[in-house]
Amino acid sequence: MYSIEHYRKEFLDYLGQKSIDKEPTRLYAPITYILGLGGKRLRPVLTLMTTDLFGADYKKAMDAALAIEIFHNFSLVHDDIMDDAPLRRGQQTVHGKWDINTGILSGDAMLILAYRFFENYPSGTFRELAQLFSKTALEVCEGQQYDMDFETRDDVTIPEYLRMIEYKTAVLVAAAMKMGGIVAGVSIKDQDLIYEFGKNLGIAFQLQDDYLDAFGDPESFGKQVGGDIIENKKTFLYLSAMQMGSAKEEKELLDLYSIQPRDPIDKISTIKDIFVSTGAAKLTKSEIQNFTQKAFGVLDILDIPKKKKEVLKQFGENLMDRKV
Amino acid sequence: MYSIEHYRKEFLDYLGQKSIDKEPTRLYAPITYILGLGGKRLRPVLTLMTTDLFGADYKKAMDAALAIEIFHNFSLVHDDIMDDAPLRRGQQTVHGKWDINTGILSGDAMLILAYRFFENYPSGTFRELAQLFSKTALEVCEGQQYDMDFETRDDVTIPEYLRMIEYKTAVLVAAAMKMGGIVAGVSIKDQDLIYEFGKNLGIAFQLQDDYLDAFGDPESFGKQVGGDIIENKKTFLYLSAMQMGSAKEEKELLDLYSIQPRDPIDKISTIKDIFVSTGAAKLTKSEIQNFTQKAFGVLDILDIPKKKKEVLKQFGENLMDRKV
Repeated sequence: MYSIEHYRKEFLDYLGQKSIDKEPTRLYAPITYILGLGGKRLRPVLTLMTTDLFGADYKKAMDAALAIEIFHNFSLVHDDIMDDAPLRRGQQTVHGKWDINTGILSGDAMLILAYRFFENYPSGTFRELAQLFSKTALEVCEGQQYDMDFETRDDVTIPEYLRMIEYKTAVLVAAAMKMGGIVAGVSIKDQDLIYEFGKNLGIAFQLQDDYLDAFGDPESFGKQVGGDIIENKKTFLYLSAMQMGSAKEEKELLDLYSIQPRDPIDKISTIKDIFVSTGAAKLTKSEIQNFTQKAFGVLDILDIPKKKKEVLKQFGENLMDRKV
Repeated sequence: MYSIEHYRKEFLDYLGQKSIDKEPTRLYAPITYILGLGGKRLRPVLTLMTTDLFGADYKKAMDAALAIEIFHNFSLVHDDIMDDAPLRRGQQTVHGKWDINTGILSGDAMLILAYRFFENYPSGTFRELAQLFSKTALEVCEGQQYDMDFETRDDVTIPEYLRMIEYKTAVLVAAAMKMGGIVAGVSIKDQDLIYEFGKNLGIAFQLQDDYLDAFGDPESFGKQVGGDIIENKKTFLYLSAMQMGSAKEEKELLDLYSIQPRDPIDKISTIKDIFVSTGAAKLTKSEIQNFTQKAFGVLDILDIPKKKKEVLKQFGENLMDRKV
């Protein structure tokens, strides 16, 4: 196994070689743009690591990793249109830089392009990868739909929220890892185990995102702290505060979540206090811990060298300790 | 071989059985809606017919036909957003009935669902179908991009226009037929021949659409005659009139194509006169004939029973004689 940095660098080199410089320019330029905006490259790195983990050459997994990364960026392009977001990774979104039509059509092309990268594998592998990909991609759409549905619902439960982040975020992390296993040619049992690892890690990752959005250090967080609160997003913090809070706290939270003050500083600070006083902040941290441990538990069953398990564990721990 | 009506009915039965009644409702209901709006079902019927043509059981091609029809409807949903169209087949468009976000996301789900219907074939067939599908779907996106690019360009050439309609419309007809061949297990050579047949038929079909839009009989056409003229669309009629017209005709056409009068009746009638006087109407008709004959020429080479060829020829001739 190599360092995370090594896989990321190798992936970025490969991505650079594969950049699509085709006509019509207006269809393909946005694809190069969004893929070049950076990010942690978490999913493709996990694909490469997993192939390596199972004892195969991680370079064989490059095309699967690329498909995953292109799909992830497709979902960002279309989600940013739906969320009317001006910025992505601190830069203009595709529909902001071009227009909505360009965002829709270039996104469509990315979804199709993702499938094309599986074509470099033998038929059996191609089929396994493409089937897993289709199943996952559809779940991601379902997750996005649930997320949008939740905006106008005031009876969202915590299990519903967990299912939403599982679909919207975790299954892609899980599939990224399972694809690494498929490329390595491991048994269905091992594929399923690594999928479970990825899924639980993905849920923990998203809960950590929710937590950092409120309690991240403004110095290191990179984004505006309190973004979810400003947008009245029903995150895990909010839902558990509503569930665990006193009648008074519940009412205060509801009231604050019905306004969008021009200067949100007081709102953010009051809500963060409620997240703490209700125990929601603590519960979120402990759930992050639970899902991380559930992932690590799966790792214990896997029949791979202990040293390799340690690398994955380290990776998971770093993710949960992250400040960004 | 059966009648077109038979294949269409069988396909519609199958489509009815496969209707997707899943959660979240807001993601899947628009899919059922758009697939239920009707239409000629030209592409799936061609898939079934082609499998039959090559001597295999056309029922084996149902899932490929369904994938093609779902993809075609996906492209309608996203195109209607891009074109800001309120109506589709005389009914509300998906984004009109719901909203743009629903149109984007349900469309994405349809693109993915299309791939899933190939999963019912053996790995080798799955691969052939999915690869052809990806290549074709990407070309359709390119065609749509060229079409949008042309709106703001005033130097579009006839060869560029023909390439645009080839990508936007004809390759899907071609792929629909080739898939029928793949399911029937025919040679690459026969697959390529039937693809050429479909491509040329598809181009003729689109040119016929252009022609009918201006010269269709208002009684039987179903849509408003002159829709392309109202929208100043650079169709084959327009481009060839610009190329063949006198300086005076060219100027008049340019002037008329720069306005959008509230009552378009005079504009439509003057432009139709120019289409006739420049010879553009005649050229369009002869090009429709050329591409149809090119398709039929391919048919002659195919090693299939003469009777079956006659059915396909009849189908092509009906398409070119259609009034809608």
